[in-house]
Amino acid sequence: MLIEAPRHAEIFGSVKIYDVQKVLKLESKEIEGPLLRSIGREQIEEVLEKLSIVIPIKNEKIKLLDGVLKAIPDACQIIVVSNSSRTGHDVFRMEADVITHFHSLTKHPICIIHQKDPGLALAFKEVGYTSILDESGFVRDGKAEGMITGTLLAKCLEKDFVGFIDADNYIPGAVNEYVKDFAAGFCMSESPYSMIRLHWKHKPKIVKSRLYFRKWGRVSEITNKYLNFLLSNCTGFETDIIKTGNAGEHAMTMELASIMCYSTGYSIEPYQLVYLLEEFGKGETECRDVVNSGVEILQIEMLNPHLHEEKGEKHIKDMLLGLLSTIYHSKLCNEYLKSKILEELRTNNAIGQEQAPKKNLIIPPIKDIDIKKFIKVLEGGYIYPH
Amino acid sequence: MLIEAPRHAEIFGSVKIYDVQKVLKLESKEIEGPLLRSIGREQIEEVLEKLSIVIPIKNEKIKLLDGVLKAIPDACQIIVVSNSSRTGHDVFRMEADVITHFHSLTKHPICIIHQKDPGLALAFKEVGYTSILDESGFVRDGKAEGMITGTLLAKCLEKDFVGFIDADNYIPGAVNEYVKDFAAGFCMSESPYSMIRLHWKHKPKIVKSRLYFRKWGRVSEITNKYLNFLLSNCTGFETDIIKTGNAGEHAMTMELASIMCYSTGYSIEPYQLVYLLEEFGKGETECRDVVNSGVEILQIEMLNPHLHEEKGEKHIKDMLLGLLSTIYHSKLCNEYLKSKILEELRTNNAIGQEQAPKKNLIIPPIKDIDIKKFIKVLEGGYIYPH
Repeated sequence: MLIEAPRHAEIFGSVKIYDVQKVLKLESKEIEGPLLRSIGREQIEEVLEKLSIVIPIKNEKIKLLDGVLKAIPDACQIIVVSNSSRTGHDVFRMEADVITHFHSLTKHPICIIHQKDPGLALAFKEVGYTSILDESGFVRDGKAEGMITGTLLAKCLEKDFVGFIDADNYIPGAVNEYVKDFAAGFCMSESPYSMIRLHWKHKPKIVKSRLYFRKWGRVSEITNKYLNFLLSNCTGFETDIIKTGNAGEHAMTMELASIMCYSTGYSIEPYQLVYLLEEFGKGETECRDVVNSGVEILQIEMLNPHLHEEKGEKHIKDMLLGLLSTIYHSKLCNEYLKSKILEELRTNNAIGQEQAPKKNLIIPPIKDIDIKKFIKVLEGGYIYPH
Repeated sequence: MLIEAPRHAEIFGSVKIYDVQKVLKLESKEIEGPLLRSIGREQIEEVLEKLSIVIPIKNEKIKLLDGVLKAIPDACQIIVVSNSSRTGHDVFRMEADVITHFHSLTKHPICIIHQKDPGLALAFKEVGYTSILDESGFVRDGKAEGMITGTLLAKCLEKDFVGFIDADNYIPGAVNEYVKDFAAGFCMSESPYSMIRLHWKHKPKIVKSRLYFRKWGRVSEITNKYLNFLLSNCTGFETDIIKTGNAGEHAMTMELASIMCYSTGYSIEPYQLVYLLEEFGKGETECRDVVNSGVEILQIEMLNPHLHEEKGEKHIKDMLLGLLSTIYHSKLCNEYLKSKILEELRTNNAIGQEQAPKKNLIIPPIKDIDIKKFIKVLEGGYIYPH
């Protein structure tokens, strides 16, 4: 793969955020140059073997899941965490069937678990990680909870890296690229605490019966704007470096994934950045090893367009609220930025004129979970294939 | 790559047409099974090094060409044959600039030539291949003429395989797959006279502001229907095995590409099948070596959807006319099939009630061209980069 070298980076305390790097070529010979990074197939393969791909899924089209699975490079463990319907039309059963067929045909290492699996809830309870559970004792609904579950399973499987791919992608070839972009990112990063966030070049939308290649989604634009405000506040220099505030497609080293707090709902991805800036920006953290090594955030612009299921516009208000609340309630957010966020939310009718956004629920890191105990409780045969 | 084994094949004389084989996985470990073919990366790489990709282009969006180039595997020589505008807005100059930049950045072996290059016309004239020239002495307009030019250049570069990719593809990841599908096909075929034709799983269309994943285009459906009629006529057994009558994305061994006659206009792809059935079906050919080895035609269903520029519906009549004329004028076409074709053309208002379709212009094989002489004349520095 041939990728642009990052042209600059913003640094706040131990956190280094690199500018967007474009993928210049999917497969490349070794090229030398100060502005280029060529990453050989062997290097990428080496990371892929240690990478687990988590696919959170909830009632997506089965054909799309099938295409996504078929595109993931051979060396990567796949972990599907499903929160699909079980009553009435048993969507989870269909997903499990697709995965069983896929596994028996290809021998690809893959497992699927339902988010509401009683064994899973019990395992979380036994290890004391109850903040992921709801009042009925099961794992709470939500993509964030699915992603955390997947991350923990990847940790159980002793993987060094974990990446997240949405199940609603129309282009298998793009999924194949995402995974290799993750791997290329880890080849370039130097810290054991690294995160790779993918940026789409274009997100095709249907406008008046034609495909229009949009550069920015509306929610992304607002998210990035306020995240950059927050970062500018911290460093004292205005910046627009953050372009992947909402990156659904992202990956982390297991070291980083283990020490992160997670936000819930629509704010999980932007909160990752807020959390890192809060925790490692001012050096007040207890994780001294992170301060010594530094946290690296790479943003990679993929070559393929991002063409996925349209979920409609109705959730935009909820998304904005979740995203901006995360910045509003950050300890790094000053009064001026708070007033701007309130204005934005009120203009978009996301909150009333006198309201302030509610704080998002935050889930603690998984680092203290007793993995052996967790596996032991979980091993009741709930994960398929074994 | 993991591909289905073909479930059956139709044989007519020396021509063997295999049923569609689906790509089951883009990258795969070695899998054994009677209904599967797993093709290792090394095997694919070996073919890629001997494969030249020809991209015929005429005033396509530059961004799409750029994405296509960036996706082609590293080992493949790329040959762009452009018939884009030179007067007014110099599109060819822009293409040449993109290619120069791409080459200087990536060192990928690539060249571009304009179809109306005087040196190219002169070279064809000198070697006596004048049927590709128009009355003004230049290479005639048309995609077929561009493809033949590209094939000849690939032969000059001593490549063993030649594949064709359209320049208007929106999905770089799909292009990457096409090229590997070609290579996988050649790994599976046994004859030195082999052709790989790609079949799309779906061709997304915009229908009422949503993406609708069509399985069959209207023209494809009609083309395949009549090609299958022709084949059924030959063998005496009805069949629907041909599913890639219009496959723009196809590849051939250079041995096969060299001995083929080519049709012009919209009929180049379906005529390849008609020609092979005519020439090698009844054993009347002079190419005894082909009869001994047999001709193999593989049809591969790609994993990625085929999403390309919409050219509008206005050419559909012209396309139907070109395609069906090729079958109508085949020596294998009987009176009943002729009457069905006339009916189809008249129903679609492609010809008048009393008219018959005109015969397409056929261009002879390139096998007798004196390659050394052709290169010598062409070497005036017209191809860029050198």
